[in-house]
Amino acid sequence: MVRVALAPHTDQHLVGAIKDAGGQLVSPDNAEVLVWLGGADDFPQLADGVEWVALKTAGIEEFVTAGVIDDRRKWTNASGFYAAGCAEHALGLLLAGLRQINTAIRYGWDKERIDPEVRTLRGATVGIIGAGGIGRELTPRLKACGARVVAVNYSGRKVDGADETVPAVRLDDVWGRVDHVVLAAPSTPSTHHMINDASLAALPSHAWVVNVARGPLIDEAALHRALIAGEIAGAAIDVTDPEPPAQDNPLLTLPNVIVTPHVANPASRLTEEMAPWLAENIRRFSAGEELLSRVSSGRDY
Amino acid sequence: MVRVALAPHTDQHLVGAIKDAGGQLVSPDNAEVLVWLGGADDFPQLADGVEWVALKTAGIEEFVTAGVIDDRRKWTNASGFYAAGCAEHALGLLLAGLRQINTAIRYGWDKERIDPEVRTLRGATVGIIGAGGIGRELTPRLKACGARVVAVNYSGRKVDGADETVPAVRLDDVWGRVDHVVLAAPSTPSTHHMINDASLAALPSHAWVVNVARGPLIDEAALHRALIAGEIAGAAIDVTDPEPPAQDNPLLTLPNVIVTPHVANPASRLTEEMAPWLAENIRRFSAGEELLSRVSSGRDY
Repeated sequence: MVRVALAPHTDQHLVGAIKDAGGQLVSPDNAEVLVWLGGADDFPQLADGVEWVALKTAGIEEFVTAGVIDDRRKWTNASGFYAAGCAEHALGLLLAGLRQINTAIRYGWDKERIDPEVRTLRGATVGIIGAGGIGRELTPRLKACGARVVAVNYSGRKVDGADETVPAVRLDDVWGRVDHVVLAAPSTPSTHHMINDASLAALPSHAWVVNVARGPLIDEAALHRALIAGEIAGAAIDVTDPEPPAQDNPLLTLPNVIVTPHVANPASRLTEEMAPWLAENIRRFSAGEELLSRVSSGRDY
Repeated sequence: MVRVALAPHTDQHLVGAIKDAGGQLVSPDNAEVLVWLGGADDFPQLADGVEWVALKTAGIEEFVTAGVIDDRRKWTNASGFYAAGCAEHALGLLLAGLRQINTAIRYGWDKERIDPEVRTLRGATVGIIGAGGIGRELTPRLKACGARVVAVNYSGRKVDGADETVPAVRLDDVWGRVDHVVLAAPSTPSTHHMINDASLAALPSHAWVVNVARGPLIDEAALHRALIAGEIAGAAIDVTDPEPPAQDNPLLTLPNVIVTPHVANPASRLTEEMAPWLAENIRRFSAGEELLSRVSSGRDY
């Protein structure tokens, strides 16, 4: 039986998953596997016997920064089971922008405020930048709406269902070939400020930029300039840099900006959705198979 | 050659379609086919030779009320080529409600305002009431988001892709078995106020009601009572009764109501989208085949 510790607190869904997978609940000192439901700040000193640490967040940059991720253990993140919810939120944000639902909420029944060319996903090309788990979930949703999908990922390995997959090294070619973009990449040095003066200038003037990933992917000052100048049509973001945003962040007052307060992946259902994944990963660990959602301190997207 | 009149004004897309289909443009007096781009108010006296009238609206209740629709001619409406846009708008409205994008737009970055149980289409059952053209387009979009679809139509004939199709005579059984509803039925005496005290009481308290059809399908006073009482979670509507809504319509000020000003089917692209349909229907008319989008004064949904 695999010895699994659940810390810093217990959880009924995960206890059930651990038992279902044939695991034995033990204390962290005695564990082969640590399922860590806390943040980076209170991450514990790991016992030597811990071979695999399962983190509960999708973005692991806090743990990387804190220096807790080592190379001698296996580490997994939570990207897989956040993916469907984030993809749905991204679709909702994109449609809210394209269909000018934000304009209607702000200004009421005023057809003069609505661009008569209400934009649509039908026939539009959407770039998914950082097409991992969220991209796999978002692609079929966009295709069902009649959009064309250009996926950008680190390897350039084809994303199922996407019309085209582009490796990240060729990202600069993508901005001018899409109608809209959804950012779904992790926050790393190479993704920092990927939305900047140059990429905003390359996007078409009717583009909406959606961010369900991490705030630092966007240079917010450049985004503000581009929105004021009409270089793009709008931005719909679930994340800011920093969070919460400063009260005087000028993006918050623009009519063509939609901001949701980092709710693409609701915390309330996390462990319920994590449970089957954890059970499968414990089974894989027991069998010596490759773990799902492996990450490392040096991993990009 | 089929003799086609285009009135009360011309249109480049439709002129192209008529010529592509082998039609000949003539005056209304001399036409077999009248493509009418106006409303019911200025509808002309029809020449005896007119065998088919193509209307540009999806809902034809104004023409029914004006008594212009007769039984000796064929009549078609525009439901088919509005359908995809309306379906996309319905999906956008539903997601804006479920993901609480309206709350975020109204209140800014305030997690306390967001119900921690951000609702999702995944695993939800959505009823499409009046599942014709819009329903056929909306069903695959909802399925791609992981929802279960219960379609209600007049005949009960199975809607492709829907998990269940229910005939309209059994509509009262549906309210209690769905999480959310999208109204897509025409405005007729039998659909008048289908959202009323009884149906609102039967819907679950987490339900969103979306209306991309016609305002009179909803008893707005009953909807207001239900929203205040928490009988349902919210309403996202593209239509009101009357339109535009009265400035003191109390629905407009509720935080859990989203109103867009009848823009599900943008007028700007109407004739462009209508053109291939018109060409196909002229071809069918020439060949003596069944026309697409036939309607009659007595037709329900």
